[in-house]
Amino acid sequence: MKSAKPYIEEHKDRFLTELIDLLKIPSISADKAYANDVIKTADVIKESLEKAGCDKVEICDTPGYPIVYGEKMLDPKLPTILVYGHYDVQPPDPINLWDSPPFEPVIKKTELHPEGAIFARGSCDDKGQMYMHVKAMEYMTATNQLPCNVKFMIEGEEEVGSESLGWFVERNQEKLANDVILISDTGMIANDIPSITTGLRGLSYVEVEVTGPNRDLHSGLYGGAVANPINVLTKMIASLHDDDNHITIPGFYDKVEELSKEERAKMAEAPFSKEAYCKALDIEDVYGEAGYTTNERNSIRPTLDVNGIWGGYTGEGAKTVIASKAYAKISMRLVPDQNWKEITELFKNYFESIAPKGVTVKVNPHHGGTAYVTPIDSLGYKAASNAYETTFGKTPIPQRSGGSIPIVALFEKELKSKTILMGFGLDSDAIHSPNEHFGIWNYLKGIETIPQFYHEFTKLKNS
Amino acid sequence: MKSAKPYIEEHKDRFLTELIDLLKIPSISADKAYANDVIKTADVIKESLEKAGCDKVEICDTPGYPIVYGEKMLDPKLPTILVYGHYDVQPPDPINLWDSPPFEPVIKKTELHPEGAIFARGSCDDKGQMYMHVKAMEYMTATNQLPCNVKFMIEGEEEVGSESLGWFVERNQEKLANDVILISDTGMIANDIPSITTGLRGLSYVEVEVTGPNRDLHSGLYGGAVANPINVLTKMIASLHDDDNHITIPGFYDKVEELSKEERAKMAEAPFSKEAYCKALDIEDVYGEAGYTTNERNSIRPTLDVNGIWGGYTGEGAKTVIASKAYAKISMRLVPDQNWKEITELFKNYFESIAPKGVTVKVNPHHGGTAYVTPIDSLGYKAASNAYETTFGKTPIPQRSGGSIPIVALFEKELKSKTILMGFGLDSDAIHSPNEHFGIWNYLKGIETIPQFYHEFTKLKNS
Repeated sequence: MKSAKPYIEEHKDRFLTELIDLLKIPSISADKAYANDVIKTADVIKESLEKAGCDKVEICDTPGYPIVYGEKMLDPKLPTILVYGHYDVQPPDPINLWDSPPFEPVIKKTELHPEGAIFARGSCDDKGQMYMHVKAMEYMTATNQLPCNVKFMIEGEEEVGSESLGWFVERNQEKLANDVILISDTGMIANDIPSITTGLRGLSYVEVEVTGPNRDLHSGLYGGAVANPINVLTKMIASLHDDDNHITIPGFYDKVEELSKEERAKMAEAPFSKEAYCKALDIEDVYGEAGYTTNERNSIRPTLDVNGIWGGYTGEGAKTVIASKAYAKISMRLVPDQNWKEITELFKNYFESIAPKGVTVKVNPHHGGTAYVTPIDSLGYKAASNAYETTFGKTPIPQRSGGSIPIVALFEKELKSKTILMGFGLDSDAIHSPNEHFGIWNYLKGIETIPQFYHEFTKLKNS
Repeated sequence: MKSAKPYIEEHKDRFLTELIDLLKIPSISADKAYANDVIKTADVIKESLEKAGCDKVEICDTPGYPIVYGEKMLDPKLPTILVYGHYDVQPPDPINLWDSPPFEPVIKKTELHPEGAIFARGSCDDKGQMYMHVKAMEYMTATNQLPCNVKFMIEGEEEVGSESLGWFVERNQEKLANDVILISDTGMIANDIPSITTGLRGLSYVEVEVTGPNRDLHSGLYGGAVANPINVLTKMIASLHDDDNHITIPGFYDKVEELSKEERAKMAEAPFSKEAYCKALDIEDVYGEAGYTTNERNSIRPTLDVNGIWGGYTGEGAKTVIASKAYAKISMRLVPDQNWKEITELFKNYFESIAPKGVTVKVNPHHGGTAYVTPIDSLGYKAASNAYETTFGKTPIPQRSGGSIPIVALFEKELKSKTILMGFGLDSDAIHSPNEHFGIWNYLKGIETIPQFYHEFTKLKNS
């Protein structure tokens, strides 16, 4: 296949403008206040797929937000690639830490992105990376180089657990039949160190509520005599880790896959500078489970993090009150072979069991997903590896990510095909954080590399 | 002195309307957004003191909110009573737990207030109790029965630490010279069990901030590898109590006054039903320091309570983020002879010392106050006791309160006079909580009892 470079060079400005327009829509799936924006985004994606050359594009209703489905079937005998992405984004909070409004994209140069990066919520996760596939499709159809069949499935609930996608996939196995699933919703080590994600962590997300007295109390009249729900909540959360930062929930590690010496040695080869890591985050030192390196702690080991906590008086000044209720949002990242429903149950039972008399505890499971590991000897991985060699001039490094795309495990179960994770973002792109951005170089490099994957995969499949 | 009952009966409706109008002004000293309302309230108090018969009333400027000063000097040879109260109120949060808007007073009957109670922020703490003194003054002047000199000092910063009052008292010792200080800002055991507060706890109020990475992070990519400020904060707070709920700050208990067996036995005589206590709060059991009863835990023992905590994502749904910062507001109730500045320092040093590498910790002291105990053999106490006997037909029980009026210790130091705490609220009046209220019976009983105190004190002083 010819290099897409000249075509990209010619249409670069339009590729940027189209993405920027897409990023202006605040498609925050977690917050119902933005429901219309989420739905509007689905319509924009539909149009873009039609323009990119899909024969059939439809907005598929679900119990939740719609899924945009598009396809171009050249010949049933040819292999079929299923592209997955999501058009919803994380909430932008805390807004005040953004240097520019999250839904008013601006282009700025950074140390790691000397050619400029687009700053906006969703620029990297996942609108920008998803849209690379739409533009790669445009290139292949416009230049009559599409080598195989292609299907697109773009959802709007990835940031809140992809429930409707699960529902949709279970009901449309034939429609979604494919030979390989292609996703760009992860990152790579560096612009000059291409890598392919071979593993994802699972997730269990819960919200807990601790209730003490039936009303807020004066901390003088009642202080010391009744259980303070906030103090109790801190004690309960603190007890979930021991002094080695192991998680104390009974049975939590029972099914955790232990990697071999060899595998851990291979992982250790990936370039990592603790000094640079700490400097980038302004921290004096890393912190985590005893006996594991930083790269292991955030990829092959399960974790438990509080994502949010609140209770009592949080306004200006002082209020001497004992709150009636305290809350926390807690997520656990899981690894093979932990079952997220099992872990959620273990958490619930244990957390309720450690509540002292004088308070009542509620644990509300939010959502979850299973971890995933892809073999590096699959056709899909080889095709991806070859594609990177062509466009980066380097063999990509296989790398496990600490993130989660809960739906990937379900794809394998329901659609019986492997998923290839070709991510072009960097960890420092601040996804889920203020000032999320995506390098223009990375955006265009993705558009250049994806067609090569189509080419390589079709070639390997037919050989 | 004649009973005030007939006069109260005649003017009851006006007494209520005037208080209700006062309660409609949201004089929240903790929140600058309400600054104009706080100042407006001072003006209303000034007018009410003039109408009540003070000869000289002035709004005294301070570095913070103004202090309303009023006086009526009959004769320098007569004893002088200094009345203290405050016109500021606690923030009403959480608003959604109020059955009616906090600044739109309504009158409703309750189990403990069959004759009705006024529901509004400040109804009991302290506008309602402070205004009893204004109306008692009106009665005495209107009926030419004022037996002594009287001075009023009503401040607007009690709920945020009374800093300006300290500043004012130090500069106006002559102006404020008195024989006894009278305050109604506490409670009594029950409407049929009158009691006089003989002790108050001190206070140290701090705000803590834990900072980890320089930005919010994706909990997948970084989870397990960096210190999560919220997890760390919960661990640090949890470690402030041991399993017996003793406070673990080194030196915290060094100066705590230990009561004798006899004193504790006397305390134990005060009527208390654990069952009723738990039922009123909807809790299964009480909770607190091992080795002490509920009445001891909330009066003669120091405490450490989190009054507010916040960090990370607290909106609807799920956000998988590691927050850059986590915060908590923490208050410690102190007892004789703990020094609040010393305790604040001990807390700061200890809390900073237990922070793990990978986070930085800031401790910002808010305000504080020293505990206070008044002897029951003082003239003032005897006068108060006699006054209660006249109007309640019962001898009041001396009782230590868990609450704090930081300024009382300063009064004794600067003005060299004892303070008498004649409180007419009930613990169940929900001060500092949603649905704060004050019984109409209690309001009128206070107006009836206060003139008797003037009479008894003058009599005892002259005998």
